[in-house]
Order: sequence, then C-alpha cells, then structure tokens
Amino acid sequence: MPDNVADLGEFGLIAAIADRLPQGDDVVVGPGDDAAVVAAPDGRVVATTDMLVELRHFRRDWSSAYDVGRKAAAQNLSDVVSMGARPTALMVGLGTPPDLPAEWVLELADGLRDESAIVGASVVGGDTVRADVVVISVTALGDLGGRDPVTRSGARPGDRVAVCGRLGWAEAGLQVLSRGFRSPRALVEAHRRPEVPYQLALRAAAAGDMTSMCDISDGLLADVGHIAEASGVAVDIDPAAFEVPPPMRDFAAALGADPLHWILTGGDDNGFAATFAPGSSLPEGWSAVGSVGKGTGVTVAGKEYEGPGGHVHFS
Amino acid sequence: MPDNVADLGEFGLIAAIADRLPQGDDVVVGPGDDAAVVAAPDGRVVATTDMLVELRHFRRDWSSAYDVGRKAAAQNLSDVVSMGARPTALMVGLGTPPDLPAEWVLELADGLRDESAIVGASVVGGDTVRADVVVISVTALGDLGGRDPVTRSGARPGDRVAVCGRLGWAEAGLQVLSRGFRSPRALVEAHRRPEVPYQLALRAAAAGDMTSMCDISDGLLADVGHIAEASGVAVDIDPAAFEVPPPMRDFAAALGADPLHWILTGGDDNGFAATFAPGSSLPEGWSAVGSVGKGTGVTVAGKEYEGPGGHVHFS
Repeated sequence: MPDNVADLGEFGLIAAIADRLPQGDDVVVGPGDDAAVVAAPDGRVVATTDMLVELRHFRRDWSSAYDVGRKAAAQNLSDVVSMGARPTALMVGLGTPPDLPAEWVLELADGLRDESAIVGASVVGGDTVRADVVVISVTALGDLGGRDPVTRSGARPGDRVAVCGRLGWAEAGLQVLSRGFRSPRALVEAHRRPEVPYQLALRAAAAGDMTSMCDISDGLLADVGHIAEASGVAVDIDPAAFEVPPPMRDFAAALGADPLHWILTGGDDNGFAATFAPGSSLPEGWSAVGSVGKGTGVTVAGKEYEGPGGHVHFS
Repeated sequence: MPDNVADLGEFGLIAAIADRLPQGDDVVVGPGDDAAVVAAPDGRVVATTDMLVELRHFRRDWSSAYDVGRKAAAQNLSDVVSMGARPTALMVGLGTPPDLPAEWVLELADGLRDESAIVGASVVGGDTVRADVVVISVTALGDLGGRDPVTRSGARPGDRVAVCGRLGWAEAGLQVLSRGFRSPRALVEAHRRPEVPYQLALRAAAAGDMTSMCDISDGLLADVGHIAEASGVAVDIDPAAFEVPPPMRDFAAALGADPLHWILTGGDDNGFAATFAPGSSLPEGWSAVGSVGKGTGVTVAGKEYEGPGGHVHFS
C-alpha cells in the first residue's frame, strides 16, 4: 500500500476505493463507467447534495476518517429520508491534498459504505481531485416507493410538532472537544458519529398522518423555522417537552451552561422534526414537542427564544 | 446587491441563485426543500459527479464565472449523455471564499443553467459552504428512456472507432493562455467553453449500432484506453483520420509543436468516442478514426504512441 494519495494516483485511488464498495440490488451500473445507473422504481428520484470542508465541518485530529465518512453519508441520507424516501445510492466527490495518507481515504470510503449499508444504499461512483484541504461532496439518491414526497410546506395550524432522534448531543460533544476535553465520552462520540433514526422517520412517513418533515441539521428551532416558513404557519415549541440526558446535564452544570440551548439550537445530530395532522397518534419513537398555529416564525413557550447570546430570531 | 458572499449569507445566496433557475418539466420538487425530486420515467436513473477546484481546473483570471459554470455543467452532462441518457437535472455543491463577489456566484449559476438548458435539464438544488478557494461539485442525473445504458465495456473486435465533436481545441487554447497570449481567439474560446455535441451522441446512441461510448475528457487515447480496458479489446487509432483545423495548425507551427499531439491527448473538449458494430453506417456528425481488434491497449497506426515527451503508455 503506497503511503499517500499522490503515490497511488487518481486511478489507483479510485480502484482501491471501488474494491471496498459492495453494490446492492438497486445498482444497475456501478463505479467505473462514465456514470452510474441506479434503480428508480417509483419513476421519480429524490436527490440531495452536501459539501463538507476540512477545518470547517470536521477536523482530522478530532474525527477519524471513518467517522467523517459516516457523518458525511448520514447528513445526505437523512435529507433523502426526510422526504419520506428510501435512500438507494451515494455519489462522492473528493478533493484531497497529495500528501494525505491513502489509508485515510480508504477509511473514509469504509465510513461512507457502512452508514449507507444501514439503509441499504450503495456508494455507486465519484470523482477524486487534488485540493489543499480535504473536501467531500456527497450526493444521495432515493426512491419514494409510490408515496408523495414529504415536503417542508405541508404543516397546517392545529398540527402537532414531534421529533425523533437525539437533540443537542453533537453540539454538546463539540463543546467538549473545543475546550480540549475528551470526555464525557458519549457526547464526544455523538459529535463524531450521529446515530440517525432513519427507520423511525421512514415508518412515520409511510404511516400517512405526517404533514411535513425535515432533518435536524441546523438545530431544532432553525429547522422547524424552515417548516414554518415553507408552510406559512407559526410553530411554538414547549421547552418542558425535553428531558436533559445525564451526560449533557452534568457537563452543562460543570460549564455553567444551559443544556436546553444545545437541545434547541444544536445541529448535526440528524434527528428529524415533523408535523402530524390533528388527532393522529404519534408513531413509535416520536415525541411531541410543540404545536402549529396561525402566523409566522418559531416561539418557545409562546415567546421569542432568548439564547445565552441574547435574542435570536428564527424566521 | 451586497458585494460578496459573506454579506449575502448562505440563505441569501441560495435564494438569489434559486431565483435565476427555471425549473423544467422533469422537476417534481425543486430547490428549497431537504432534497429535490426529479422525474425518472425509465425506472432507472443515470448519475455522475465531478469536482472542480480553482487553480487546478480553472483560473478566475482566465475564465469568467459564466464560462466556468458552462464548463462544469458540460463535463457532467456529457458523462450522462455518454451513457446514452438524456440529462434531466443538475445538483451543485459550491465552496466559496467569503470575499468572493456575489456576482461571481450568480454568473456561475447562469452558466450552469444555460448549459443545462441546451439539453433540457434543470439545476434543482445544491449546497453552499465556505472554502479557501472556489470548489464546484456537480452531479448530473439522466433518463435512459427505455434503452439499455451504453457502457464502456461493449466494444468487440471488428468494431469501428469513431468520434464526434472537437478534439484538441481546449488543450491548444490552454497552451495559448499558459504562454500569456490571448489569441488565436477560437482556441482560447474552446478552452473557456466547450461546444459539446450532445445531440449527435444521443442520436447515435438511439440508432442502436453503438457498442460502447465515453466522453473525451482525459484525451482521446486515454479515453479509448478506458473502453479498451473495460471491453477487453485493443484499439488502433489512424492518425491520418484527423484534419488539423487552421487556427490549431498555425499556432502549432509558431510554437514548433505537433498539433496531432493535442488532438490525440488533449482533454476537456467533451466530444465523444464510441465503437460501432461491423457493417453499420456511421451516424451523422461522426468520423471514423480507428478500429477495434483482439488484444489490449491503444496503438496509433499500429505502434505505441510516442508523444513529444517520449513514450506514453495507455492501458
């Protein structure tokens, strides 16, 4: 195995990556041709793309290549799932410095592969180029299976707001790392590798009472703000709905910080927020956290949210 | 209009871009949700991705933002077309320095839009992040319309090799620019903005006698080398098949360079190379340039190609 990506060369690198990527049932033409061909049995394809830049979205001294791969995949797979679609394939553009260890790239590919495998998706292609820092661009594709896409614009006054997945854990982990600590371990792990409740979201979307959904990547208030704006409604979040998990509570206490702030505004856990029609029972794994009303914007217990940095407005 | 992308902010930038992007008939859900939804009537979707990094793939002092957009789109649209598929949509990940003029990004979007419009595709979504240099990651989707994908692996001994589109022009233009010249204008323009013969390739793929195809992005010899390798055949290229266009001939003469070298090895014109079954007549716009035989590798007039830098081996 050569030491770095320049030794291996572009085609060597691509071949080494492709060797590690099993191709699932949805793959018609996998890596190695001008383009991949992926099943789209619904007759429509869901597609989303995200770019991660080293030092802005991850640090190589804080996260392993494998965890960066898991996270980059999770971010895109959760966008597909938040449309109510089953992810089928990932495409990856990768910029690497020439002195990047080849092993780093292969472990990144393993992370992308393993996160995709959770939902049955395959990494079907990509591109590698030189760059001064690591840049990872992931595109995920998905299939709606005959259902309407769940957009951000379907929330109506009277709907309930509910979430599934962890909230604030990744942000708390980032606070741990940025202070030079390595524990609480559970928070650090949450920052490094989100545990995305893909199946809870897909089952809830299939159940039919969901009126809108988005994944929580910018933070709960910001992301329900996207729903409020797209739907032309107001959302009120009930701060009493959240239980502060023990590791977060203890670390916040040591810091003199408010853990509710992390829960309401921390991104990167890739949970899901959704609205459900009045009278519907919430699907398994989902917790009610608020309500939809007439108007615009997001409030917390009826008031604009005041973070520790003062007044924050969510459109 | 704010001066740079930092003034505009991520959401402002995305809104300004989305305003310039009309959404075609294939778009079910366009920009602004967690993911786009695009028609895939064939039940399979063709997908490809490429990353372009400033200073490696383009220079802002040599190419306008509009031309970079045209080129970035062309590179991916031609990959979709080389599978025999009609491009439907583009997704764009964009890394920008904070001091990049917002106008640059909007003109880039115009270029992506206009090149896509040539084939009826829409820019349906993307992501913008901060980076130290401009990084553009484009993913293109396409529809096979019920036909089998045209892969690289279908060439058989006895097939004819043919090309459509320009060869060596972009490389000659790069030679002009890298010597500090601004003319011959036609060569510089070819470097800045490829003229991709999408329809010639799609019509030829639909005609049915094509056994393999790829777009010419690494250079003719390298790209037919990919076909030779994937198909397990040998390809011989006839150097007498190429006419050297006057601006290239004159510039090469002034430089003491061999224009045939640019034609055989220059990439970035995004023409197409394909193989056609024995006895078939070549489609309109295609020129025969060689033949497929038993064996491996690519030869020119029966011999390994000797470039000006000496012996070059194409697998």
